[in-house]
Amino acid sequence: MATKERWIFSSMKIEVDAVVIMNGVEPNVDRSFFYATGIPNGLFEGCIAIIEPRRMEVLSSNLEELSSREAGIRTTVFDNDKHRTELLARRLKGMDRIGINAHDLTLSNYRYIKKAVKKTKLVDVTSDMENARLIKQPDEVKKIQKACDIATKAGKEIPEFVKEGEAETSAAAELNYRMMKLGATGPSFVTAVAFGAKSAEPHYMPMQRRLKKGQFALFDYGAEYGRYVSDITRTFICGSPNAKQKEMYDVVAEAQQAALDSIHAGAHGKDVDASARTVIDKSRFKGRFIHSTGHGLGVSVHDPGSISASRDMVLKEGMVLTVEPGTYIKGFGGVRIEDDIIVTKNGCKILTPLTKEFVRV
Amino acid sequence: MATKERWIFSSMKIEVDAVVIMNGVEPNVDRSFFYATGIPNGLFEGCIAIIEPRRMEVLSSNLEELSSREAGIRTTVFDNDKHRTELLARRLKGMDRIGINAHDLTLSNYRYIKKAVKKTKLVDVTSDMENARLIKQPDEVKKIQKACDIATKAGKEIPEFVKEGEAETSAAAELNYRMMKLGATGPSFVTAVAFGAKSAEPHYMPMQRRLKKGQFALFDYGAEYGRYVSDITRTFICGSPNAKQKEMYDVVAEAQQAALDSIHAGAHGKDVDASARTVIDKSRFKGRFIHSTGHGLGVSVHDPGSISASRDMVLKEGMVLTVEPGTYIKGFGGVRIEDDIIVTKNGCKILTPLTKEFVRV
Repeated sequence: MATKERWIFSSMKIEVDAVVIMNGVEPNVDRSFFYATGIPNGLFEGCIAIIEPRRMEVLSSNLEELSSREAGIRTTVFDNDKHRTELLARRLKGMDRIGINAHDLTLSNYRYIKKAVKKTKLVDVTSDMENARLIKQPDEVKKIQKACDIATKAGKEIPEFVKEGEAETSAAAELNYRMMKLGATGPSFVTAVAFGAKSAEPHYMPMQRRLKKGQFALFDYGAEYGRYVSDITRTFICGSPNAKQKEMYDVVAEAQQAALDSIHAGAHGKDVDASARTVIDKSRFKGRFIHSTGHGLGVSVHDPGSISASRDMVLKEGMVLTVEPGTYIKGFGGVRIEDDIIVTKNGCKILTPLTKEFVRV
Repeated sequence: MATKERWIFSSMKIEVDAVVIMNGVEPNVDRSFFYATGIPNGLFEGCIAIIEPRRMEVLSSNLEELSSREAGIRTTVFDNDKHRTELLARRLKGMDRIGINAHDLTLSNYRYIKKAVKKTKLVDVTSDMENARLIKQPDEVKKIQKACDIATKAGKEIPEFVKEGEAETSAAAELNYRMMKLGATGPSFVTAVAFGAKSAEPHYMPMQRRLKKGQFALFDYGAEYGRYVSDITRTFICGSPNAKQKEMYDVVAEAQQAALDSIHAGAHGKDVDASARTVIDKSRFKGRFIHSTGHGLGVSVHDPGSISASRDMVLKEGMVLTVEPGTYIKGFGGVRIEDDIIVTKNGCKILTPLTKEFVRV
């Protein structure tokens, strides 16, 4: 297995002497920092990773020193901002071109690095970092699989604790609890539990709403494990669905299966997206699928890569992506079904094998 | 009560026609977006808030449209990146100076805005946004108090579920569960539960370690409620402490009280920091307090403002800050005691009135 620094540099088209990844203050942290270093613990605000083809070093605050050293990373502790600047300038001295990740670097930190390295050229390597992160290495797949296992196991228990009268935040609490008891560091994002009409808001966060008979109960959640994440959505019904709800569910399930069936190494993301979209647009829910079919998954919930009409890419073996068509009607509700998959030569493997029956709670 | 846009502009020293806040992809979201708009729900990746002295507008993706409108915010939905650029350029047309928040804006998004507004000058208003966010308005204090109430109530139950043999992630699961059952959207950051020697790592995240007799059990956690957060630390002992553990706890408790006693409107942060530091440095734990005494708290866990020797500031009525001295010995363990306070004219009010006795579990 290639070291992360070798892998990153082998994925690069732009030539640089080193890549510098710098974190801001939470939440503005570059997840590439954890991708590259593999450090499983700590916050690392204001810390810097210097990645060279055969060398990696972290400039760490004293708050993170132990976490960095225990991960086997070459670590230098800075005492204050001035000391950090001196260390950075010294490490990068004599280099001609330094890569930075503009997608996640704050403007303040960009200016800080620029000042520290003076006339050395800073080159945006965002797309190269994305390319590196797109194809998951075996050690990454293991962690993602574990994050998926936790979410799948916890998801099986949803019908046990969600019932009429349950509040959204309470249901989210139950789900997070089960994921953490199974070993997750925490939820990978705010666990979305949306009842009734709120299920039509794709990025809804749980509130005090209580579940009523005849309502959809949409759960969009994931686990974080060793910095890697999972991301599942399942939609339930409280009691019996009416005809329109049943039809909506069936259409989305069919769309998701169509997308899954069309995935293989070499397939175009836009074609996979079209497979799902065609099913929905041929139904009475035409135009109600208002987002892309999927996104990359790794150290971030929204990792590089997508299954999308507007941002096409060719799928390759080892990419991990979500497949999550949905259909939404304001005031009525929505259905989304989401799995995490890894692309294989001839198809894909589902990492979240949780039932897709339209389960009644 | 002033509207947020009026408050922001009244806090500004730099003259601009508008402030543009733009979010990246999670986790690189600018919490100022939620501070300014007050929108309680949704992710708002890639969305933009345009703040003028008497007008606020959000350019929203269709995924967040309902969340934005329900918050009573003037909302325009963009269909794609090109459409968003056109809307942004049109809204800012004729303006001379646009403020941006370099501290939280990604370099990619800076370049995106720069391209959209062409020759209009972009001015960094980071310190002005910090000034605005430093003094909490009544509606903010209410939400912070609620986040603190939840964390305080849940904290009272820690001795009920933490005991010998309990795993760190399991204890964190219990605590998060209780906070969410009390109405929190989720933990405000990864709940840190550190047993034994791990309590010496200030930014530790919970792992599978199990609590043993004679070990410290450090809990650093908070609740998120309506986008606002709390942040508490308490350190427990499993069974009976030895003399050194007892002494460490007493010294930190004394240091925290000294800091609290020295807070009032007009006090200097560096003096408050010195009050705590002197107590620790006079003890056998000299030099073991390796971070600042406190930081601001609001829509971010690390909100603008600090109680620090290196980043001094004058405390003012309405600032909300953490007060959290600690003492750490590698291989032995650490103690930290943290409360959230609001600065008042003659002192401070503790928002997290959880016992500071050295509790045995």
